[in-house]
Amino acid sequence: MGKGRLEAFSDGVIAIIITIMVLELHVPAGGGLRALRPLLPVFLSYVLSFVYLGIYWNNHHHMLHTVKKVSGPMLWANLHLLFWLSLVPFATGWMGVNRFAAGPTALYGGVLLLSAVAYFVLQEAIIASQGPDSILKEAVGGDWKGKVSPALYLAAIPLAFVSPWISNALYVAVAAIWLVPDRRIENALRAREGA
Amino acid sequence: MGKGRLEAFSDGVIAIIITIMVLELHVPAGGGLRALRPLLPVFLSYVLSFVYLGIYWNNHHHMLHTVKKVSGPMLWANLHLLFWLSLVPFATGWMGVNRFAAGPTALYGGVLLLSAVAYFVLQEAIIASQGPDSILKEAVGGDWKGKVSPALYLAAIPLAFVSPWISNALYVAVAAIWLVPDRRIENALRAREGA
Amino acid sequence: MGKGRLEAFSDGVIAIIITIMVLELHVPAGGGLRALRPLLPVFLSYVLSFVYLGIYWNNHHHMLHTVKKVSGPMLWANLHLLFWLSLVPFATGWMGVNRFAAGPTALYGGVLLLSAVAYFVLQEAIIASQGPDSILKEAVGGDWKGKVSPALYLAAIPLAFVSPWISNALYVAVAAIWLVPDRRIENALRAREGA
Amino acid sequence: MGKGRLEAFSDGVIAIIITIMVLELHVPAGGGLRALRPLLPVFLSYVLSFVYLGIYWNNHHHMLHTVKKVSGPMLWANLHLLFWLSLVPFATGWMGVNRFAAGPTALYGGVLLLSAVAYFVLQEAIIASQGPDSILKEAVGGDWKGKVSPALYLAAIPLAFVSPWISNALYVAVAAIWLVPDRRIENALRAREGA
Repeated sequence: MGKGRLEAFSDGVIAIIITIMVLELHVPAGGGLRALRPLLPVFLSYVLSFVYLGIYWNNHHHMLHTVKKVSGPMLWANLHLLFWLSLVPFATGWMGVNRFAAGPTALYGGVLLLSAVAYFVLQEAIIASQGPDSILKEAVGGDWKGKVSPALYLAAIPLAFVSPWISNALYVAVAAIWLVPDRRIENALRAREGA
Repeated sequence: MGKGRLEAFSDGVIAIIITIMVLELHVPAGGGLRALRPLLPVFLSYVLSFVYLGIYWNNHHHMLHTVKKVSGPMLWANLHLLFWLSLVPFATGWMGVNRFAAGPTALYGGVLLLSAVAYFVLQEAIIASQGPDSILKEAVGGDWKGKVSPALYLAAIPLAFVSPWISNALYVAVAAIWLVPDRRIENALRAREGA
Repeated sequence: MGKGRLEAFSDGVIAIIITIMVLELHVPAGGGLRALRPLLPVFLSYVLSFVYLGIYWNNHHHMLHTVKKVSGPMLWANLHLLFWLSLVPFATGWMGVNRFAAGPTALYGGVLLLSAVAYFVLQEAIIASQGPDSILKEAVGGDWKGKVSPALYLAAIPLAFVSPWISNALYVAVAAIWLVPDRRIENALRAREGA
Repeated sequence: MGKGRLEAFSDGVIAIIITIMVLELHVPAGGGLRALRPLLPVFLSYVLSFVYLGIYWNNHHHMLHTVKKVSGPMLWANLHLLFWLSLVPFATGWMGVNRFAAGPTALYGGVLLLSAVAYFVLQEAIIASQGPDSILKEAVGGDWKGKVSPALYLAAIPLAFVSPWISNALYVAVAAIWLVPDRRIENALRAREGA
């Protein structure tokens, strides 16, 4: 099985998740600009999740660049990742509607954590299928980003009940870590081509 | 007509069905974690249907691997399958909201049954178009999974009125049967390539 | 500009239209099977529109088979077709919720009529771009289906106020006309390849 | 990274945005044709936004024709454009439901303005990646449309509080400017091929 359809399906699901999320920005009944004020937290949570889904799409894209043949475990690991990502709109909406309250902020962290774990499982499934000479393994190396992120989510979940702002600062920080261009996979591919 | 666009369209519809299903998880008004409790059955029904749609996408994918030219009957058999799958979100939502009550559990079985029948019809349309030397026919062989599944759905529908838990256990069992890797099509393709 | 992206975009929009339509089947609050009864007309209108969108997708597909280069007018004629098709879920929902009442049935016919006109405009744009030797022109020939359908929609609109059942019978009849396999384009392509 | 997946993802998001927008046309409860009257402004705002999204899709398409390799900045500039476009359904719905009132009309202009800015940023990212010999730079030339449009949106925002009709006339005017076929990119590509 080629990877084309796996990519297309994942793109489709991520595109729909990202767009469905905006439906939580309910059109207010009143026409005054004040009617927008209560929507501000919903909008901010939308921005955060949009960035996260953009990062996942981007990284998913790079990771699949190293794949030539899709195996059965890879396929289910990918669906597993899409499952957790599909819960992002719910967690985002709940956090936004409740103005970043403790419970919803903790749940949001939980969904991010499980998405990160699912991403890691997919990464390992790809590495396993590539054997000892895996280019993806070489590319991710020590994978400090992949290790720090779940640790920060794990810390953010209980911290939400101390102050949701700490947790949300952590979510923003993790997103920032990933937004910084990551050339590991590109470099590994280039190095191998050069060799 | 090439199969590319048929695959792309099917992927699009299945991706949307899978994602739209999550909209049934309505964002609760309250921000306490207790507000999530009534959503648990909706979440569980979502998990079950996500797995089913993942299985359908996966199998659809493998089945179309054996297809070279798309015929008219194949095209309509495919739309017929997508029609029944498009009712999965409705059946899932109804079952979840009503905490796996008898009626919704029976309806869910009915949608699964009709989807399975539609899948079988598509399979037969492909086999018919491939003639006596059909690689798909060779691959499915006795097709015990394809025969046992509708039988179990058919049993689950009336049993829902005895106890919905029996029916739901059957739905989980059928999903488990299909989740076990199925290498029939891959093996048939490989055998032929080797020959 | 290649036609690949035009096909992919059209497929995406049609796939979403077809799936969004099912959202009009609101999950009923009660769990008894009786709760499904008021949904029957909504379900029937969904079936009718699903078939219509399947026909449009199918024909669109065949028509674009004859296209090699996408022109500007073709692109806008295609968006124009997608616009009217995007109103099908609204018309379908309104007709279903109001149990095939006169007004909604007439509006449904109006949307079908304008979709058919838009399809015709797209067909003409393709024929114009192909010049005097147009394979599509050859394929559609007298195009009796393309002429009878809008005439029947046009008749169905006022007839809805006499009896909506006459109009709905006409909608079903037009769908049936198109469901009968139409090999015009395939034949024209094959004839030319043979020549 | 090839541009195929970037195009496919963008197409998916734009296709979903365009289709989700129609959900704001809520199916009215009553079945008389009068029930459609209050929907007229919602319908008109839908038409306007459909045309805008069609223009964006079309131009995006042409612009990416000049791209061979997708860079990191390009990828994020593209997601940034999709972000603002994803707010079009909200702004459209709010403007339609409030019958083109001042506040919503101003917000609509703001979303159009930020989308135009994001489009410009993407254009510059592509030009930067193409170096001094950029074919896109040659194609857009003085880019008067790209400069006039944001200026008119900027004027339309405060003018909405004088009269929303002036602003809406400006939005229609900008759309009309872009609807006139724009052969800059095609010509630049053709000129280069000829050279």
